[in-house]
Formats: sequence, structure tokens, C-alpha cells
Amino acid sequence: MTARHPLDDATTLTPTGERTATGATHPAYANMAGPFGGATAATLLRAVLDDPARIGEPIALTVTFCGPIADGGFEVSWIEKRTGRTVQHWTVDLVQNGKVAATASVVCARRTESWEHRPATMPAAPAAAGVPPLDIGARLAWLQRYAFRFIEGPPQFAGAPGDGPQSARSLCWLSDLPERTLDFLSLAALSDAFIVRIIQVRGKPGPMGTITLTTYFHAGAEALAANGARPILGVADANIFHGGFADQEASLWRDDGVLLATSVQASFYRD
Amino acid sequence: MTARHPLDDATTLTPTGERTATGATHPAYANMAGPFGGATAATLLRAVLDDPARIGEPIALTVTFCGPIADGGFEVSWIEKRTGRTVQHWTVDLVQNGKVAATASVVCARRTESWEHRPATMPAAPAAAGVPPLDIGARLAWLQRYAFRFIEGPPQFAGAPGDGPQSARSLCWLSDLPERTLDFLSLAALSDAFIVRIIQVRGKPGPMGTITLTTYFHAGAEALAANGARPILGVADANIFHGGFADQEASLWRDDGVLLATSVQASFYRD
Repeated sequence: MTARHPLDDATTLTPTGERTATGATHPAYANMAGPFGGATAATLLRAVLDDPARIGEPIALTVTFCGPIADGGFEVSWIEKRTGRTVQHWTVDLVQNGKVAATASVVCARRTESWEHRPATMPAAPAAAGVPPLDIGARLAWLQRYAFRFIEGPPQFAGAPGDGPQSARSLCWLSDLPERTLDFLSLAALSDAFIVRIIQVRGKPGPMGTITLTTYFHAGAEALAANGARPILGVADANIFHGGFADQEASLWRDDGVLLATSVQASFYRD
Repeated sequence: MTARHPLDDATTLTPTGERTATGATHPAYANMAGPFGGATAATLLRAVLDDPARIGEPIALTVTFCGPIADGGFEVSWIEKRTGRTVQHWTVDLVQNGKVAATASVVCARRTESWEHRPATMPAAPAAAGVPPLDIGARLAWLQRYAFRFIEGPPQFAGAPGDGPQSARSLCWLSDLPERTLDFLSLAALSDAFIVRIIQVRGKPGPMGTITLTTYFHAGAEALAANGARPILGVADANIFHGGFADQEASLWRDDGVLLATSVQASFYRD
């Protein structure tokens, strides 16, 4: 018997009524304060994925992180906003101590046979097996949940080398620890696993956090399962750090060049 | 006295109660069926912008287009989900004939004095004055609301030239018609004004439409007002067309190189 993966535990929801459930933060995904945002994103996505009325597969997920989530329990509720022939829209709320701490919109859809074209191609990268994983040391629990094999743009936890801002671009093989066969839950979490750009660019940790995250899933369940537990290639970059807010854009690839997801996020930082 | 701009009319909401209002589609922004999605996005954003409890300025807007909007009236309702010291989260619903036709999440924030860094730079482009506007002909009303000065990647309404897919990249000066001083409403609409990528790539119009649109605003009200009615530079591209769904990513720039917004969207297409 295989032990359950901590991501399955962290995203477990216990039904309490009609499209309401309780969940709890999990120490394996603890962040500086409260949980890793990717675990929260996966939890909200799971509420929809496990709903018997869900059609097709997720194609888009937007999560807003509205306030701090304290370690402990929370309530999740979700609404089927509209279901068409092939596309279905949901919203999800996460409430803790009577306050909304996160919201999500989830779009599910039945993919169809169609004309296909893939103008974006995977960035060149050496095979994951040849790239040593980052030594996370004793840092935050959620960082221990991933093997980060940086080819370019590692986080600068100890301060940026040299003068001026470093490049905001990272190229990195990512995989769950312990190993986990890729699915929508892990992919949703992985889309938030790029360490906040400002740590790399500025090398000056300070108050910071993701405010909103949008991920588009470009591959179906079979294509994810076919990845097995192999590392996926992530590339992340940023356009701007301004007025206390920054952005990030990222894409995630199967090692044979199949685009799995693209993602953007807005985050805050304070001096 | 200056006549009101049609975008102001198209986004007008008439209060009917506590954070509820009615609006109506406007013929000036008519699309193939129902309104141009950018006008809908601007309408949902306006509900929040005009709310007296709103703090700061919008930094992120996600709109989901849940179903067709028929020409005519609709109801809009909005909820203040959470307000922190500097960041505020809202959700908005647009309902027509008892069905949710669109939802939005809006993040507002007070920008602060902070460290600043702008790694992304505006693509090189000839001045707008030297680029002739696209001849829209008698096409859809909403297309008449914009001057599209394509430098690269015009839509292929009459079929793509040559064999195989065309580049998904467009570079284009965009401005409101009639002229309008840039603000968050027009910028929200402009972020959806790139003509759906598949028309350009495939040159084969068919059923298609935006499903969800996320726009990050990277400039404040003053920076937008300083643009006046000058054309802004837009660049759009796509990563994938697969299973009946496609993506788009775009950025919008003031002509002096200030990044105004970045935007992504997912759309459907049928053969």
C-alpha cells in the first residue's frame, strides 16, 4: 500500500452540506505565515473537481488570496455559476473565522477534436537528471515539498550577488517531493511554486506574497498522467516591480515538449 | 460641452439597491452576438470603481464570460469580499434573464513608494502617426470603436495568405474611436481589443469567443491620464491552439515606454 501524498491530505475537503466543506492547513505545506498559496489553489480547485456535476476538465483557474490564512481549519463553499454544452463556470470561497481568505474562479471544459497548432516551444534545457536539486536547507516546509533543479535564476536567499537587480527569469525543473504522478492538483500547486520573483531579483527578503494567480491548463488528464512523476520544466519571468506590486508570468512543460500550463500572478512586496 | 463617449454610455450602471444595478448592452459595442467582451469587462470593473467603499486603484481584473449576453438589459451585483490595509478584493456578477452571463474578480490596491524595477521594455515600433489604420469596412460595430494601426500580424478576415498557420503575434497601435482620454475603463476594454488570435493565425472565421480574461494594471490613474488620447502600443501572441481552446497573452504600452497593462485570455474555437 502506498502512503497518501501530503498534497492529497492538504487538499482534503470534508463535506458539511450542499457544496460546503471543511478543510485544514497542512504542516507539510506551511509557508512563512499560513499555507503555501499553491496548496490553497489546489484545495479550491479540488472542491470543483470532486463535484459530481463537474463536466470535462479544468482549463482555467484564478485564485485571489484575500487575506492571511492561519494554521488550522477553514470552510470552503462553491457555486456552479453556469454550465453550457462544453464549458462550465464555478466560483469558490474559502472562509476562515468568518472572513473570506481566498476566492477562485474555475473554468472546466470538454476538449474537442479540433484543428491544432502549438506556436510556443519549450525552452532549451539540459535533462533534469543532470541538474542537481537546490539545497533548501532548513527553510520553509513547503519548499521541502519540491525538488527545484535550477538551470537559470535561482532564488537569492542570501542576498543578490553583485550590484543592481538580477534577471527575473528562472528556468527550473520542478517535481513533487515525495514523488507524485502529475495531475491537475499538483499542476495547480506547481504553477505557484516559482519562488516569488523579488527574492531572486533583489535578494532582499521582506514582506511579500501572491495576491492573485491565474493558471491556464493546456493539457488533459491523460497527458498529465503520462508525465508520471518526472520533473516538469518551468520558466518564469516578470515584467515590472512598481509601487509595491510585481507580476510574474510562467509556463510549465512536459520534458518531451508538451505545454502543460501557463500562469500569471500579481504579488506585493514591501521595502 | 463634450458629448459623452459611447464607452461611458455602454458601461453606465443604474443603482437598484445595495450593490445592485442595471445596465444594458450598447449598439456601439455590438459584437457578432451580444456585446464586445471588453465592454462587458469595463462594465464589471466600473461597478467596483464607482463604489464609495473602493480603496486605491484596480491592479487586477479577471472576467469570465459564462454565457451569451443578448442585446438588452442585465443586472449587475457586486460583493466586497475582503479589505485589508492596502489591498481590497471584490467579485461581480452579471445576470441576464436569471442566468449568470459573466463574473469578475477585481483587486484594488493602494500603490506605495517602493523599490522599482522594470525589466520588460516596449517592443520597437514605428510611431503611430506613420502607421495607417486598418480599414474595418462595414464589419462589427465594436471594431468601429477602435483605430487599429497594425505594424505586424493583422487579422486575416479574408483568409490567411499562403500555406499553414500564420504567426500568432500582433504588434499594433490601438486607440478609442471617438478619441477618449485613457482611464481604467478604456484600458480594461482595450485589453480585450486584440482580435481573437485564431482569425489571424488560421484566417478561417468560425464560432469563437473569449472565455476568461485576466488583466493586470501596472500604472495608476495619473499615468493613464497622462497618455491623453494618444494610441497605445499593444503586442499580443498565443502559445497554443488545442482541443478547441486557445490562449492569448498581451501587453499594452504608453508610447514613451511605460507599461500600462499585461493581459491573458483563454478562448474557444470550433472547426
